[in-house]
Amino acid sequence: MAGRKALEVYMYFLSQPCRAVHIFLNHNKIPHTVKLVDLRKGEHKTPEFARLNPMQTVPVMVDNGFVLTESDAILKYLATNYDVPEHWYPRQPEKRARVDEYTAWHHTNTRAHASRVFIIEVLMAYMTGQAPDPMKLEKALADLSKTLEKLEDMFLKRQAYLCGEDITLADLLAICELMQLLGGNRDILKERPKLVAWKTRVQSALNDSFEEGHKVLYRLRDKSRAKLCESGPE
Amino acid sequence: MAGRKALEVYMYFLSQPCRAVHIFLNHNKIPHTVKLVDLRKGEHKTPEFARLNPMQTVPVMVDNGFVLTESDAILKYLATNYDVPEHWYPRQPEKRARVDEYTAWHHTNTRAHASRVFIIEVLMAYMTGQAPDPMKLEKALADLSKTLEKLEDMFLKRQAYLCGEDITLADLLAICELMQLLGGNRDILKERPKLVAWKTRVQSALNDSFEEGHKVLYRLRDKSRAKLCESGPE
Repeated sequence: MAGRKALEVYMYFLSQPCRAVHIFLNHNKIPHTVKLVDLRKGEHKTPEFARLNPMQTVPVMVDNGFVLTESDAILKYLATNYDVPEHWYPRQPEKRARVDEYTAWHHTNTRAHASRVFIIEVLMAYMTGQAPDPMKLEKALADLSKTLEKLEDMFLKRQAYLCGEDITLADLLAICELMQLLGGNRDILKERPKLVAWKTRVQSALNDSFEEGHKVLYRLRDKSRAKLCESGPE
Repeated sequence: MAGRKALEVYMYFLSQPCRAVHIFLNHNKIPHTVKLVDLRKGEHKTPEFARLNPMQTVPVMVDNGFVLTESDAILKYLATNYDVPEHWYPRQPEKRARVDEYTAWHHTNTRAHASRVFIIEVLMAYMTGQAPDPMKLEKALADLSKTLEKLEDMFLKRQAYLCGEDITLADLLAICELMQLLGGNRDILKERPKLVAWKTRVQSALNDSFEEGHKVLYRLRDKSRAKLCESGPE
């Protein structure tokens, strides 16, 4: 479109919701420019970034001057306004409602509980140089376990993906949260065959964009493993 | 429609998200049957209710056999599939994205922080018969205060309602959370003129359905006041 500015997305690849947006853009070949915001360096707290997003969070999408925050809203906007297969965010009312139902649930369940484990196990440990607090970690893992059970017993009970027989935005948001824990060398899915099978389906549906999007986590996992080897067995 | 079963909604009026759905249904004159689920009596934990909603939460909507949970998703489904004014959930992409942006933010901000204060100040106090823990209450009020600042300084900065110049689902979800604190006789808006003006606009846009929907809270507020009078000045 003449005069239309290319889509810009401000993101940081170690952020789960940023990766969901990035994988979606790449997988659906939506032309865009990535603007890196290094959270470790506090780049989300600069006056310049706060002018763009006073919430000081990533991702932020800028589409021809329209500024939007919240990965959930960004993905729905992109799925609706760009030329992508309908299965991502179906128009059929009941199917769409299923995606809205999961995404509403996601914020205080999959996202809250998976990221809590990552914060305790990886971020806090990195920032303080100390081993994670075992009590806090145990509580966080127990909360996450309940969420994983619900993903298996409710959402995946009778279907291949979280919201039906095809992949949607819900699966993308969920997988990015669950993959995050690999960064601490923790595979939370391994004893959950239903979630493993679902992950394989999501991975295969996303193909190269899945692998590309998670490279940053594979590197972090390898670092965690190397650290474990350095400290040796107890 | 021949053979179509009337809309049923399972709810409990002391639940903020239930009230949002109930006010929406009444205000838009959508015919429906309310099925009361008394959370105090544990009616959400009966095998019968768990079959309907394994998450054991309210509200639950049943529309001609289609079962949907999560107030956010229910409101979007109703706004899309019933004959209601478009301003509630606009079709125009940027306007709709604003509602999706707020509702995504709502779960871990307005909802999380306002309900935390209510839980500490009213529910826990009721269940244990003891005064609220002052440290916990102070922390919860500080978190809520940050959320209220964001509502004023960001969402309401340049507009009459949270997502633009007209009332949307976002305002309805938000007002029901903030009104909840009246139940503990706490008016958290009183020193925040921008939020007071917004509340007046929401109240006036919703008219009778606002008053009707919040009756249960006015009764709880009166009880809290009576209790304060009984215990007298210290």
